[in-house]
Amino acid sequence: MKIVLVGASGTIGKAVDAELGARHDVVRVNRSSGDFQVEIADPKSIERLYAQIGAFDAMVNTAGNVHFGPFEQFTGEQFEVGLRDKLMGQVNLVMLGLKHIRDGGSFTLTSGLLNDDPIREGVSAAMVNGGLEGFVHGAAIVLPRGLRINVVSPTVVEESLPAYGPYFRGTKAVPASEAALGYAKSVEGAQTGRVYRIGWSRDH
Amino acid sequence: MKIVLVGASGTIGKAVDAELGARHDVVRVNRSSGDFQVEIADPKSIERLYAQIGAFDAMVNTAGNVHFGPFEQFTGEQFEVGLRDKLMGQVNLVMLGLKHIRDGGSFTLTSGLLNDDPIREGVSAAMVNGGLEGFVHGAAIVLPRGLRINVVSPTVVEESLPAYGPYFRGTKAVPASEAALGYAKSVEGAQTGRVYRIGWSRDH
Repeated sequence: MKIVLVGASGTIGKAVDAELGARHDVVRVNRSSGDFQVEIADPKSIERLYAQIGAFDAMVNTAGNVHFGPFEQFTGEQFEVGLRDKLMGQVNLVMLGLKHIRDGGSFTLTSGLLNDDPIREGVSAAMVNGGLEGFVHGAAIVLPRGLRINVVSPTVVEESLPAYGPYFRGTKAVPASEAALGYAKSVEGAQTGRVYRIGWSRDH
Repeated sequence: MKIVLVGASGTIGKAVDAELGARHDVVRVNRSSGDFQVEIADPKSIERLYAQIGAFDAMVNTAGNVHFGPFEQFTGEQFEVGLRDKLMGQVNLVMLGLKHIRDGGSFTLTSGLLNDDPIREGVSAAMVNGGLEGFVHGAAIVLPRGLRINVVSPTVVEESLPAYGPYFRGTKAVPASEAALGYAKSVEGAQTGRVYRIGWSRDH
């Protein structure tokens, strides 16, 4: 399979590359390195990316920015970061990829646990993750040509604890290689419309 | 209680008015009628609304627009309708209401079943509803001064079947008066961070 991996140089992206690169042709995409570059918050940049890459079998995205900060000080501009980048960036990777992806291909997005297991500074991440899961449920039933879509919702990964540990006290971390299994299941399996929760489960 | 009811003239809004108006002082707000007017997609309009109303005990919103249409033809502009109106309109009713709501007050928003029980033309609604539920989970744990927040997720209401029935074949409808119970539970109860699913349940 020819797999477009957006966010390939990130913590989870590198683990997905290691998992899927062993068996497939991975096209590595980042903001400023890799085989191709993209700014996912800019739909025109996504259009240029797909025009350069041509036909492919799977798109996996592990990139996406969201602002974290104290609830009462959240501004409209700060909410916009997550809406434009992690939410609509991923939605547009799907919508604009439709005319380039081969029959039977798949899209795999990334959310995270914060919509069901929130943290203090994560109200925008909670909103964005919930939106992504709704989008995936809604898109899965109407994708044409046998296309599939899933979203991986990992807990915090061990490799990110030096940076994000203080936000996630008490949350069990998993190695990024374990999160990568969700992407392999999505790309290489046959399911669609699923949220793959890695290292945590929804209990309410 | 002084309850600000945004969307008071809508199908569900009228039922909420009937339920809560019997016991409380309801301030009725619509786009172009009622005691006060607001355009929820415009944060400045929300600021003007709250400045006019002054202190209150609860804000209930039953308004919110989302574009419905065929998946493959969805444009960025059509996704923006739901993001600006039903999603950020409700988020801004909360964020901008923080400095006007009394201690121990509550916010009650409206989502809907489509993020968990999607329909063919509802991918934007699915995304928006998921975003709202994530926001409510995230906000509930950080609201100050004993403030609470919940979201009501009704199935389609019987009164809307003449207009929306074709979208919802096979979906059991409930009277708007039953949906209104979710808003009463949110406003008059003590729970926070909850999604009140009315007339349906999540099974996956």
